[in-house]
Amino acid sequence: MDGVIEKIRKEKPLVHCLTNYVTVNDCANLLIAAGASPIMADAKEEMSDMVQLASSLCINIGTLNARTFESMLIAGKEANRLDKPIIFDPVGVGASTFRQTCAQKLLSDVKCTVIRGNISEIKLLAKERSESYGVDANIDDLKTNGNMKECIKTAQKVANKFGTVVVITGEIDVVTDGSEVYLVKNGHPLMSKMTGSGCQLSALIGAFIANEENILKASLMAVCTMGICGEIAAMKLKKNEGNAMYRNYLIDALFLLTDETITHMQKIENVRK
Amino acid sequence: MDGVIEKIRKEKPLVHCLTNYVTVNDCANLLIAAGASPIMADAKEEMSDMVQLASSLCINIGTLNARTFESMLIAGKEANRLDKPIIFDPVGVGASTFRQTCAQKLLSDVKCTVIRGNISEIKLLAKERSESYGVDANIDDLKTNGNMKECIKTAQKVANKFGTVVVITGEIDVVTDGSEVYLVKNGHPLMSKMTGSGCQLSALIGAFIANEENILKASLMAVCTMGICGEIAAMKLKKNEGNAMYRNYLIDALFLLTDETITHMQKIENVRK
Amino acid sequence: MDGVIEKIRKEKPLVHCLTNYVTVNDCANLLIAAGASPIMADAKEEMSDMVQLASSLCINIGTLNARTFESMLIAGKEANRLDKPIIFDPVGVGASTFRQTCAQKLLSDVKCTVIRGNISEIKLLAKERSESYGVDANIDDLKTNGNMKECIKTAQKVANKFGTVVVITGEIDVVTDGSEVYLVKNGHPLMSKMTGSGCQLSALIGAFIANEENILKASLMAVCTMGICGEIAAMKLKKNEGNAMYRNYLIDALFLLTDETITHMQKIENVRK
Repeated sequence: MDGVIEKIRKEKPLVHCLTNYVTVNDCANLLIAAGASPIMADAKEEMSDMVQLASSLCINIGTLNARTFESMLIAGKEANRLDKPIIFDPVGVGASTFRQTCAQKLLSDVKCTVIRGNISEIKLLAKERSESYGVDANIDDLKTNGNMKECIKTAQKVANKFGTVVVITGEIDVVTDGSEVYLVKNGHPLMSKMTGSGCQLSALIGAFIANEENILKASLMAVCTMGICGEIAAMKLKKNEGNAMYRNYLIDALFLLTDETITHMQKIENVRK
Repeated sequence: MDGVIEKIRKEKPLVHCLTNYVTVNDCANLLIAAGASPIMADAKEEMSDMVQLASSLCINIGTLNARTFESMLIAGKEANRLDKPIIFDPVGVGASTFRQTCAQKLLSDVKCTVIRGNISEIKLLAKERSESYGVDANIDDLKTNGNMKECIKTAQKVANKFGTVVVITGEIDVVTDGSEVYLVKNGHPLMSKMTGSGCQLSALIGAFIANEENILKASLMAVCTMGICGEIAAMKLKKNEGNAMYRNYLIDALFLLTDETITHMQKIENVRK
Repeated sequence: MDGVIEKIRKEKPLVHCLTNYVTVNDCANLLIAAGASPIMADAKEEMSDMVQLASSLCINIGTLNARTFESMLIAGKEANRLDKPIIFDPVGVGASTFRQTCAQKLLSDVKCTVIRGNISEIKLLAKERSESYGVDANIDDLKTNGNMKECIKTAQKVANKFGTVVVITGEIDVVTDGSEVYLVKNGHPLMSKMTGSGCQLSALIGAFIANEENILKASLMAVCTMGICGEIAAMKLKKNEGNAMYRNYLIDALFLLTDETITHMQKIENVRK
């Protein structure tokens, strides 16, 4: 599991993101910080060409609309045809019928490789009830040690349902392929005090799963890497600084990150084979 | 008037912003810094669902187009139906016939709660002549003590015309419900040296007027809070730093702001009952 | 060639950018840092009004789609009619047939004043072969002293073909009107480690060519100014800071830049009359 960052810096994967207009700039700079290259094109007329160039595809429905959803479907199908990995981020999927319908359509027409969301979003995909609280996790759904068992079960259910790796991010992150389950205890509460830490992680997963056989491990290391960057950024934050500087520090942390630091700081637990 | 920030941090209002793609990330991070949660969805298919979830609606026409304007109308009408407050930011309304037509249509179909603009924009809504200078205030319109009287009159006229609170921002800010008038002398010239301080204030007003009876006071405190953050950011700015770091410091200032600081730093003047 | 920044700060040109949603905020803040004012409107219904207000037009196809391309054509033709200068940035033009078709259509229907791209993009416009590598320069195309001659020839060819000034940015930048050729040796490798330094330069060229007779010199000074800001930002970057802070420092550098510093730091070489 060593050398993940070095690999990205050597291979410089092109990650094609169909993402929202809120955090697109952060995703681009984070990908560059990792050593990858972003493509952010979203016109349907060029989806096929762009996917051909790309090493992986990241689909994020944060501010989807009819036009961009059409592009997502085209890109997703083309990625399937070319056997390129897809990370799907169902941002706020419980917040509207439109999002649910689009997510269902996408998941039925396109074979995704990884799905990443908060517990509310992943629960929705598992068809369990979830009261949406905007695009953030439902406050009742916040993973505590108390309902971690249920959270793992939900992740596995969705992983098996769609044949993907599933990542649920929260205080403790869950990564599973449906059978093996890892918990990641890296990260920092400040990550939820800036917009787009979830979107950024999804883009980063895109960089990690590019040209990669072991999708479970690659997703796991992306989650762990993002959490470590969140911790480093928090250590650097001065007393008179807030979420705007934190956002800069998080991307900076990735820019400077080495595999040694990842090995040193990672808090991964394998809870089940 | 105490405890405004504490209230937002406790209630965590969801502010649904239909806004421009230039400053959308800043608006999201500023809302989080305040303690609120942003929704930035703009697809017409989900406007009704999103407004249902939201505590307030912020409509900003900075980069409107036919598609998003349709969403604005749907969202606005739904907010009216559900009695949720709306802050309208007529960015650069004098810059094109399209903007004027859209603003008129919106103000006639949707009952707004607060309108915030610079003097050029508010003058346009009052139907007085205003030579537009892009999306910034007309240089001849900059409020000095000389034309403050006229500025107040314009604000009152628009407030009475549309039955809203009106905020005119500038060197001195004017807040009125048509009869009562407050001046806010907080703020800093550097706020006009970054893109989106106006958009950010409008989003912040969205957070302040959520679940609030006294819209005039809530708007007033939002204006005052934003100005104070602008002052704190300017104090923090080092000699070799410019508008990019200033933008970070402004959001950071809000993130760290307490009601005590607001009470201590506010410069509010009630000029007329 | 003195006083370029002072001129912008005095004249405050309005630069109308039809640009991508990834770096639009950076472009806006950079234009403000220069002393210019940004307009980012992209609805076709208001293109004519906006171009009328603007001093120059910047067209960037980074995330173009059918809707915004229509706006680009309308704005471009209106700018031609009103004799306002246009800077065209063919971002990733080699990455898709759609981009190539759009760029060809734009360059045939609209007379541009300046074209800025990396060597891969400009080569494509010259109709030479170029293997695209996303929106970044082809690694084989990186300008070294070895192929600088060919790079200059390509720039001249495109300049003569479209009757424009051409800027090719890279380790060494080339600026030519087809006959005279300047090399700019300012800049820093970190500029390629953030998204949008190219987009930002194109926007800045928009500010420099506004109300300007000598387009070649104005473009040259914009390139040189951007490179100097990149150098200043790199000097300021601390050991534990990365590409996110660098991006702030670059805009800050322009905010604080004086013509004296430009004169002092510029590395311009006139290689051919």
